[in-house]
Amino acid sequence: MPVCTWAPDERDGARGLPGTFGGVGPVATITPGTVLRTRTVDCFGGLIRSPDDLPSRLPPDRVSNPLTGPFHVEGAQVGDTLAVHVVHLRPRGQGVSTTFPHFGALTGSYFTPTLNPPLPERVWIYEFDLDAWTTRFVAGSGAHVDLPLDPMLGTMGVAPPNGEARSSLTPGEWGGNLDTPTLRVGTTAYFRVNVPGALLAFGDGHARQGEGETCGTGIECPMDVVLLVDLVTSPGPVWPRLETDDELFTTGSTKPLEDAFRIAQRELVGWVAGLTGLDELDAYQLLSQVATAPVANVVDTNYTMLAGVRKSLLGALAPAAAYGGVHETLRGRAHQWTRERAA
Amino acid sequence: MPVCTWAPDERDGARGLPGTFGGVGPVATITPGTVLRTRTVDCFGGLIRSPDDLPSRLPPDRVSNPLTGPFHVEGAQVGDTLAVHVVHLRPRGQGVSTTFPHFGALTGSYFTPTLNPPLPERVWIYEFDLDAWTTRFVAGSGAHVDLPLDPMLGTMGVAPPNGEARSSLTPGEWGGNLDTPTLRVGTTAYFRVNVPGALLAFGDGHARQGEGETCGTGIECPMDVVLLVDLVTSPGPVWPRLETDDELFTTGSTKPLEDAFRIAQRELVGWVAGLTGLDELDAYQLLSQVATAPVANVVDTNYTMLAGVRKSLLGALAPAAAYGGVHETLRGRAHQWTRERAA
Amino acid sequence: MPVCTWAPDERDGARGLPGTFGGVGPVATITPGTVLRTRTVDCFGGLIRSPDDLPSRLPPDRVSNPLTGPFHVEGAQVGDTLAVHVVHLRPRGQGVSTTFPHFGALTGSYFTPTLNPPLPERVWIYEFDLDAWTTRFVAGSGAHVDLPLDPMLGTMGVAPPNGEARSSLTPGEWGGNLDTPTLRVGTTAYFRVNVPGALLAFGDGHARQGEGETCGTGIECPMDVVLLVDLVTSPGPVWPRLETDDELFTTGSTKPLEDAFRIAQRELVGWVAGLTGLDELDAYQLLSQVATAPVANVVDTNYTMLAGVRKSLLGALAPAAAYGGVHETLRGRAHQWTRERAA
Amino acid sequence: MPVCTWAPDERDGARGLPGTFGGVGPVATITPGTVLRTRTVDCFGGLIRSPDDLPSRLPPDRVSNPLTGPFHVEGAQVGDTLAVHVVHLRPRGQGVSTTFPHFGALTGSYFTPTLNPPLPERVWIYEFDLDAWTTRFVAGSGAHVDLPLDPMLGTMGVAPPNGEARSSLTPGEWGGNLDTPTLRVGTTAYFRVNVPGALLAFGDGHARQGEGETCGTGIECPMDVVLLVDLVTSPGPVWPRLETDDELFTTGSTKPLEDAFRIAQRELVGWVAGLTGLDELDAYQLLSQVATAPVANVVDTNYTMLAGVRKSLLGALAPAAAYGGVHETLRGRAHQWTRERAA
Repeated sequence: MPVCTWAPDERDGARGLPGTFGGVGPVATITPGTVLRTRTVDCFGGLIRSPDDLPSRLPPDRVSNPLTGPFHVEGAQVGDTLAVHVVHLRPRGQGVSTTFPHFGALTGSYFTPTLNPPLPERVWIYEFDLDAWTTRFVAGSGAHVDLPLDPMLGTMGVAPPNGEARSSLTPGEWGGNLDTPTLRVGTTAYFRVNVPGALLAFGDGHARQGEGETCGTGIECPMDVVLLVDLVTSPGPVWPRLETDDELFTTGSTKPLEDAFRIAQRELVGWVAGLTGLDELDAYQLLSQVATAPVANVVDTNYTMLAGVRKSLLGALAPAAAYGGVHETLRGRAHQWTRERAA
Repeated sequence: MPVCTWAPDERDGARGLPGTFGGVGPVATITPGTVLRTRTVDCFGGLIRSPDDLPSRLPPDRVSNPLTGPFHVEGAQVGDTLAVHVVHLRPRGQGVSTTFPHFGALTGSYFTPTLNPPLPERVWIYEFDLDAWTTRFVAGSGAHVDLPLDPMLGTMGVAPPNGEARSSLTPGEWGGNLDTPTLRVGTTAYFRVNVPGALLAFGDGHARQGEGETCGTGIECPMDVVLLVDLVTSPGPVWPRLETDDELFTTGSTKPLEDAFRIAQRELVGWVAGLTGLDELDAYQLLSQVATAPVANVVDTNYTMLAGVRKSLLGALAPAAAYGGVHETLRGRAHQWTRERAA
Repeated sequence: MPVCTWAPDERDGARGLPGTFGGVGPVATITPGTVLRTRTVDCFGGLIRSPDDLPSRLPPDRVSNPLTGPFHVEGAQVGDTLAVHVVHLRPRGQGVSTTFPHFGALTGSYFTPTLNPPLPERVWIYEFDLDAWTTRFVAGSGAHVDLPLDPMLGTMGVAPPNGEARSSLTPGEWGGNLDTPTLRVGTTAYFRVNVPGALLAFGDGHARQGEGETCGTGIECPMDVVLLVDLVTSPGPVWPRLETDDELFTTGSTKPLEDAFRIAQRELVGWVAGLTGLDELDAYQLLSQVATAPVANVVDTNYTMLAGVRKSLLGALAPAAAYGGVHETLRGRAHQWTRERAA
Repeated sequence: MPVCTWAPDERDGARGLPGTFGGVGPVATITPGTVLRTRTVDCFGGLIRSPDDLPSRLPPDRVSNPLTGPFHVEGAQVGDTLAVHVVHLRPRGQGVSTTFPHFGALTGSYFTPTLNPPLPERVWIYEFDLDAWTTRFVAGSGAHVDLPLDPMLGTMGVAPPNGEARSSLTPGEWGGNLDTPTLRVGTTAYFRVNVPGALLAFGDGHARQGEGETCGTGIECPMDVVLLVDLVTSPGPVWPRLETDDELFTTGSTKPLEDAFRIAQRELVGWVAGLTGLDELDAYQLLSQVATAPVANVVDTNYTMLAGVRKSLLGALAPAAAYGGVHETLRGRAHQWTRERAA
């Protein structure tokens, strides 16, 4: 397996990293099938290190949610499918989570403005116990509880089409700031290629996150990252899709939340109809009885929902695997890579 | 245990059953602690029996979503908490699911009107295999797949306050048409009592249902129902809550869907703060990392979302059980009742 | 012209008046064509008389938004159109407007809950100068400005169908708390009759109100009211409609606001297609260039929007008047009644 | 007055023009105070000329909504206010309006997807009578009506901050595709400068448009355009603002529509508080009684609403003009320019 090792510049609040999908040139070129070994900085560029580092006091000209990348994937043509399998995620340092003024689902906010004063600004520090694979929530009172780690990448995507450059804070058709806990180790993400080379970028690691990312931040942390990046020449999905060993997922990112729900469910109807040969009304009926609707984020500039279905419930109906079985292939190679590293 | 056995009048499309919460007198009075053995009719009043019974041809003056009840609970005072534990649900006859004109999440609809013609109207019949505990989806092509049964009650609630009478098609603070798969055997539902006697009613059994009830109907069927009904004198929740052995859930029912999300999550912040002694900002932070956000329905006159948290994640923080531990008590009695019936 | 004179019981916070559409019997029976001379109390039942009467301190068991009526209209059958022409509105006493906790468009609220503390609760008193036809806004600083009076009824409707009883705080298909400034003198409102006798009720007078009723209250005041009530046997509109000398309006009441917009615009497409003989796509095209979209309220349990079109723009296309020309007839009789009273 | 005359390249569907705000270099540099004489192409790049030119058959790689510009304004610094006064708009050629598949407010659409087939695709051609200042709507049946011209620019804005490049189809803080009929002759638009030189661009002329642009297109046409472009060094507004002789307007662009409403109204509360010295609660109260809420578009990737207030209602309270009176200055110079051209 070809391997690319690359490290982001974490100096000065990661100010040298891009804050957009699109509008920036690649940091490296990789071939399809490459194992990409790299790191991500946290969404604050590492600038919050203690409860006194309030988000509102960060430099206003900092890069919000700095990205690792973009990577040019050799041979990726407009319309292709980029497949990115998450091989390894390991939190580094410590985690932070914060409220900050006028951001979050349970406060007046930039896009749902109110006349109320903002909520108090607070920073929570989360220590990691990587052996126990837990992190500790500590309340103001000192009460605490250990939570299982469940690392994920909040942000992953490609350059958007039509000359747009979109903030790394926004999720959409190009991926971006989806903030779904489903983007964890073992998951393959599919993106439509919009520009030659695709220009894959990612970041915003969370040690864990609830559905909705309600206060506006997960347990934000730098992350060791290993990805397997591959290319499928079948037509890429309009909206990003995810696949695990057991489930297929579509995504939709917009507001209001019911429209994100509609996009994801409608995409899943089309996908399942295609895989099974059911007509769309039959697929709609079947999914009405078996689909899940996991909430990703309800705080970003677009809200993101997933629609999911267990492969086992399609088993008898769907003989062929999605995207030519690339998930199974990548999963096998990820296991191999992991075994070799452990040996 | 006191037992009340009552059967709805299923003749003539169940036209004699109520179609509202509020505005109707009780069919029976029960004491707190009663085992209520009864049945529910399906949301069509049993009028759809074959693929030719199109919903649009049903009698326009029929009762939509007819209810079993209401039951007057002796001693229930305004402000109390009604606790209803689901002991037993068993689908009867066959299941039906349909598209129908201008209803559902993936079509122009009554409240999201479009100029497009309606989707084709179709009826799917689901046979039950109660031994295998499965039901069979059959596509128009004859392709089919067996799905696990997961029976639930789509509708349960009490009379609303302030003299309102609300259609059994609508979910809200009084409960009603929540359409959440979480209202299954083993779950305790909590409702605030708004009128003396509470006036509990329920119906709309589904043999199973996906998150969102996307096409507008689950696998609708009549249901054998056993409930344990109890009363807690602590103040009832503004919005209905659910408890299982492992999880606590709040609900919110409104539109747009992000407001249903906000209501449920905000309720859970308050509940968890109360149970743990955390201040609300700490509870907000903790839940941002551990809460779930299950979607109930995105098709009814209000959309319903749940917010959930595993009790084990609160374990160290929350010494006391919710509502005085009534769920555990009812769960124990339900097990006893089930064992005695099996013996 | 038959005349009915009726006065509401204003004692004790108007606690004897209904707070729902539906669920209450008529206070009087009138024949079609009746001039109804009556009064309305304000939405607080007259309980706020000074800046010290904070809304949060009002008796919790008071009737919110008490209604005048309901009136049984002789001969009104289910499916008919009730036409109500506003002949005369005259503010009485003084006006009040308030913020109150967790209500309004620019604050966290009951259905858009936040963790922020509520806005400060304040009461503004508005004196009326009925000769100058103005009312005075006075700021906390003493700065003030005189505003033109533009009296309206915030609430008007009929009993809903299917046994529902709906709070007078909610707008919907039955009318109710539409809170549109267009319901002023000179306007005819059309409602579908849902129960025999229609059961017309109304209230919630505002001396004037901005579009959206943003803080949650207009300039609330008791009102002298004269209405002309008539009956048209053509099928009533699914959603209430309004007509003035110059314009036709449809309404839609739901959330999110774009769905209220869609309902109103879709209703107008259908109405204009019916009046002009255009097919619906042509009506959609024409209205896309000429329709207005006045906002009524963005604070109530449903949001209300209107869709409007100037009759003059339909002139060449629409030979016949709406609802058999009942607006012109009532307008003429209203002028006659006003002239006779002045003489 | 300095004058800049510039003409867009209309060849080949205006493919040489930009389709984004940001991400493109300036076509010319102008000094503050310049009279900018130019033209805009229509949103289809002139490619629809007859009812047979269906939008779905346009080249997929065309530029949607091509812009005139961007223009670098000498001396414009980040944070300044760019003031753009509309001096002259004159429709050219003919107007076109269309339905097209899965776009518009009354159809399933890209962001509100449904399973229904799209509406029929139709093109309406509008002839202009510039002497009578009317345009003719012609229905499929041949029925027709003449409508007053009311030319506007659907799209105007500056480069966004933070390295973003946003499609000319989207409205937001940088302006863009606001699609408000208020951007007509006599209006001054204010934008915050986000990059040195501001990079003003505009296009999407409509001969007239209803509130909401419901079918997705106004009467689209190329336009002769004269603008007066000026610079104010006071801090620019976060969201674009508009001023006419009689009214002040703020804008908000997002979804759901109530959030666009909230943004615009909240911005107006702040603006009026600043101009009058009222505290924000007093400004909120006053505006609740006098503000308007004009709908711009309910079809684009963000929905746009305005909040407005008549200056006369603030008269006694607001001694000073907005932005140092730049609107009055530009209005005077526009009159002078128009008089000189007529002479």
